Amino acid sequence: MTDDLGRAAMEGSGFYNRHSALQAAGVAALADIWARACDAVPVGEGVVRIVDLASSQGRNSMAPMRIAIDTIRRRTGPARPIEIIHTDLPSNDFSSLFDAVFADDSSYLRNASAIFPLAIGRSYFEPLLPPDSVHLAWNTWSMQWMARNVINASDHVLAGMSKSEEVLSAVATQQQEDWAQFLSLRSAELVHGGRLLTAFTARTDIETGWEWLLGELWEAICDLVGQGLLSREEATRMTIPIGLRQLRDLAAPFNDTGAYAGLKIEHLELKQTANPHWNDFLKTGDKDEFARRHAEATRAWAGPTLALALTSHHDPQVSLDAIFARHAERLARDPKQHEPYMVVGVFVKDK
Amino acid sequence: MTDDLGRAAMEGSGFYNRHSALQAAGVAALADIWARACDAVPVGEGVVRIVDLASSQGRNSMAPMRIAIDTIRRRTGPARPIEIIHTDLPSNDFSSLFDAVFADDSSYLRNASAIFPLAIGRSYFEPLLPPDSVHLAWNTWSMQWMARNVINASDHVLAGMSKSEEVLSAVATQQQEDWAQFLSLRSAELVHGGRLLTAFTARTDIETGWEWLLGELWEAICDLVGQGLLSREEATRMTIPIGLRQLRDLAAPFNDTGAYAGLKIEHLELKQTANPHWNDFLKTGDKDEFARRHAEATRAWAGPTLALALTSHHDPQVSLDAIFARHAERLARDPKQHEPYMVVGVFVKDK
Repeated sequence: MTDDLGRAAMEGSGFYNRHSALQAAGVAALADIWARACDAVPVGEGVVRIVDLASSQGRNSMAPMRIAIDTIRRRTGPARPIEIIHTDLPSNDFSSLFDAVFADDSSYLRNASAIFPLAIGRSYFEPLLPPDSVHLAWNTWSMQWMARNVINASDHVLAGMSKSEEVLSAVATQQQEDWAQFLSLRSAELVHGGRLLTAFTARTDIETGWEWLLGELWEAICDLVGQGLLSREEATRMTIPIGLRQLRDLAAPFNDTGAYAGLKIEHLELKQTANPHWNDFLKTGDKDEFARRHAEATRAWAGPTLALALTSHHDPQVSLDAIFARHAERLARDPKQHEPYMVVGVFVKDK
Repeated sequence: MTDDLGRAAMEGSGFYNRHSALQAAGVAALADIWARACDAVPVGEGVVRIVDLASSQGRNSMAPMRIAIDTIRRRTGPARPIEIIHTDLPSNDFSSLFDAVFADDSSYLRNASAIFPLAIGRSYFEPLLPPDSVHLAWNTWSMQWMARNVINASDHVLAGMSKSEEVLSAVATQQQEDWAQFLSLRSAELVHGGRLLTAFTARTDIETGWEWLLGELWEAICDLVGQGLLSREEATRMTIPIGLRQLRDLAAPFNDTGAYAGLKIEHLELKQTANPHWNDFLKTGDKDEFARRHAEATRAWAGPTLALALTSHHDPQVSLDAIFARHAERLARDPKQHEPYMVVGVFVKDK
């Protein structure tokens, strides 16, 4: 599984579910675009199949799946079976996912009929489902991760924020390949007229939007190296295999003919995401709480990857505690409004 | 989830996979019957769907899924998509399952084309899949478990082996209901001509086949009560919600008309399973090794349920260690050939 070298699973036992408010805010901004895709897709006569790619533990899937169900139900009536297929890496916490889907009050199953949830524990850089079987595919906050960690950066925690030309070139090459692979595989799975919505953090031509939050994380790691709590080698291995693409990188495969692998671009836009923690901070002025929330949210998605860089004589939990305590201290010094950019793409299967 | 009160998940992190040799031997005895079912089912024109009910961590699913794939491939050629859907309780170790399916050399995916594995974390006493969508359903070693623990037995570790008329009556009622529910739900999911194979431990009219192995487990628990290591209340709560049915119990719903919920009986038979540990013992004469293997195998399926009976001031691992160490001591005194009975039923959707 090449992906095991890239994106690690999110923190398990519901931790990621409880610390993904920022991702949830990003998802909310997609509601209208997603509803239009759900309304436009041909639903045929049989089972309607919706795929939720990189579902994590399911919390952020509830609202978009509910939108899809409601939109399709208005067109098909209550009896048409709908399959909802959640996918993530094999190491994902699928028990939390199934608990959320089948037992939580917030589940899209509440007051819905003939809905059948399933899961696949496999990288989406591999085939997941039979050809021509998927009506709608939803994917958020994951395609910034590379399929594998191609190179370590010795000057930043994020591969794509290194200043090294060698690192940036390796990241750009891998991300081109990942994007082409992802589009090709999903296109094969979509029915004619099927839609793929994918949204993930991206950048403008002048900034990534992550300078403050992840710059301080890198400085926190360097502080621990200075204190002898981490080695320089561990810090270098702490390279999160993420790059931030620009809109033109994502449009590139479509430039020659207006289509790629049977897909056409229906919507492609860069948005700035709202930050729920900032408004709370403006009300309370509580720098420490603001910083703590950002550090915890960062740990939820980055912690498992950083832990992989530790040598065996470090207890991962102790080291992560130290890194993110230091991260929070640094963030509290001068709180800033962290509003990363998110690209939203909708692609339609055109052949 | 009513099922959470009944069958607990098997031991996680691959433990069940490593200690289910007896179940594997039972599965091997089903190969011919399963191959005939796979050969007889109409495969239509589209995706062929096979369901593996109560998959646990997947090890015992590899051989039967391989048989199904090979049999169907001879009929469809290599390109027809086949979906393999593994189901178990939400608390099942799905990461081990997906690792086994996607990464193990023993996986049915090796040298096979167009196979798409999925999973559902939900009790099979609930609907799992759309109507008329399943060609083949495979289920082994689980239907002896009741959907919920209806009554505690104060005289045995297995509900169905109590001497109490009240307990036996409650078990019989629940098992009738479970069997009818299971058949009805699976029938709805099968295509016309689709087959359900289910095999699980059952009994003759004179013996259960579990007298020695589980009698000694109950005595081991009573020994620990005598030593003050467990309370009498904990021992009573240590009721595994399993009952052993006779063939006539399973045939009963079909008696009036020859059909039930659209299903007909194609095959119904009671077999005695081979015991791989006994032959090894005859060769080596090693009583302790024989006993240890049986105790570990028993712990793999029964341990999590027994642990639920413990009050909070007991460490579950410590208590289980003590119970199964004592169990092994008792089994080593006078090794017997444990060959439980297994019922094999094949049901065909006839309308």
